[in-house]
Amino acid sequence: MADVFIRRLCVIGVGLIGGSLARALKAAGVVGEVVGAGRREAPLIKAHELGVVDRYSTDLSHAVAGADMVVVAVPLGAIAGVLEAIKNAVEPTAVLTDVGSAKGSVVADAQRVFGSVPTLFVPGHPIAGTEQSGVEASFASLFAQRRTILTPLLETDVHALQRVRAMWEATGSEVIEMGVQHHDAVLAATSHLPHMLAYALVESLARLDDRAEIFRYAAGGFRDFTRIASSDPVMWRDICVANREALVTVLGRFRNDLLTLMQAIDAGDTDTVSGVFQRAKTARDNLYRD
Amino acid sequence: MADVFIRRLCVIGVGLIGGSLARALKAAGVVGEVVGAGRREAPLIKAHELGVVDRYSTDLSHAVAGADMVVVAVPLGAIAGVLEAIKNAVEPTAVLTDVGSAKGSVVADAQRVFGSVPTLFVPGHPIAGTEQSGVEASFASLFAQRRTILTPLLETDVHALQRVRAMWEATGSEVIEMGVQHHDAVLAATSHLPHMLAYALVESLARLDDRAEIFRYAAGGFRDFTRIASSDPVMWRDICVANREALVTVLGRFRNDLLTLMQAIDAGDTDTVSGVFQRAKTARDNLYRD
Repeated sequence: MADVFIRRLCVIGVGLIGGSLARALKAAGVVGEVVGAGRREAPLIKAHELGVVDRYSTDLSHAVAGADMVVVAVPLGAIAGVLEAIKNAVEPTAVLTDVGSAKGSVVADAQRVFGSVPTLFVPGHPIAGTEQSGVEASFASLFAQRRTILTPLLETDVHALQRVRAMWEATGSEVIEMGVQHHDAVLAATSHLPHMLAYALVESLARLDDRAEIFRYAAGGFRDFTRIASSDPVMWRDICVANREALVTVLGRFRNDLLTLMQAIDAGDTDTVSGVFQRAKTARDNLYRD
Repeated sequence: MADVFIRRLCVIGVGLIGGSLARALKAAGVVGEVVGAGRREAPLIKAHELGVVDRYSTDLSHAVAGADMVVVAVPLGAIAGVLEAIKNAVEPTAVLTDVGSAKGSVVADAQRVFGSVPTLFVPGHPIAGTEQSGVEASFASLFAQRRTILTPLLETDVHALQRVRAMWEATGSEVIEMGVQHHDAVLAATSHLPHMLAYALVESLARLDDRAEIFRYAAGGFRDFTRIASSDPVMWRDICVANREALVTVLGRFRNDLLTLMQAIDAGDTDTVSGVFQRAKTARDNLYRD
């Protein structure tokens, strides 16, 4: 793990992720001052009360002044606006990174706002979170034993990349690098698709006339299966916009797979049905030991 | 809660459900002797070693002799064979019940085997379970604070119904009665559909070329979401056969709902997307306080 010391960290968007990052870096003793920033004052006051940030400002250009590391931790749909607000205020030597769940849209935002993607901008994505949101839900160990993906471009400065890597490693996270498009395809399959299925299932059942009764007979598996449907709707709406193409591709493929299974069930083709279930169980059992 | 005492309980199929029922009734002190029965001897030896059954037999007609309560706890596809094997051996005054996850097929099986559904047969379904299977996974409190659905027919004997109800209440379960078809429709939506989605998702990802990598980036939500894909494939294949009609209906409806969501994402229709997510979150949050 490389040494890192951040003299002044500016976290724009002090929610579950931004708040947990600030807590983790403070706990690791690798940050001097943490400045919180955001549009609304209430969460910043809360973050300050909780000791997550040392001071805060709703004026983003004011907040980033003097910071050597700026982390943009707002929903994907708000990133362009944040970059616009800070572009003339961020220190020329400051490293800039984000935590967005899709990377192609963030790179496109940076390109549009800055003319070209700044060499000191390192697109990032910590694969961590809970269905909770807000700084009240943040905790220092959120990233420990998890993975953070960085998607540097050809023009990304190696020292900036190294600093962002070291920052995430200081939280206990393993850091991996991959291409922007590959990231977006992988995350569409493993994260965005399951969220769509959980949301669609719960909403579909909630629309039934006898929904009070329907939900009464939901068993233990339903609780776990639908937990991610309690995730923040705004964040997920933004992910759908930002990763539209990859998400539509995996949704289409999944609908076809579901059709195959449905037709096999309808036809009483138990070999096909058993095959799907057995392969899924084997893969899942290999992946986790619950 | 009504008093119940079962002099001799015969449990055919001593797995997670049958084993947990035997344990719960023993713990409640409402059963004299528990006789385990099944095709294979190994699980019965295990059940005997664990103290779940007092004795056992692989000869079903031998096992049911003298029992005043017979519980059939085998996968749905094996129920007809079990009924056939015991029909001439079960005591004329014995109450007969089952634990199958679909009820229409069980009633049809009973009708076919016995000529007409015996008046002392009470179709039942405890809404409980884990993704584990086998007697090793059984535990006495599996049914506590859960619900058990009974689907008596018009001809079902009221005393038999009362005894089965009291048996489940003795395990700590709440007992509810509903019609056979209604049960099958409700369970298709709340239980069978989520299992299909979890199985199909994991199998779909496992078929991708880069599956080792794909699974590496699965986050916390994925683990919970896919837990039910570790369920017993044989049991679930049988559920697909037994509840084919209701399951195909809900799968078709869900594919349509998913298409609506997919088209909204593709079109950038954020109002529709947000609406689905917000309604789902509200319903899920109202249902559980995680």
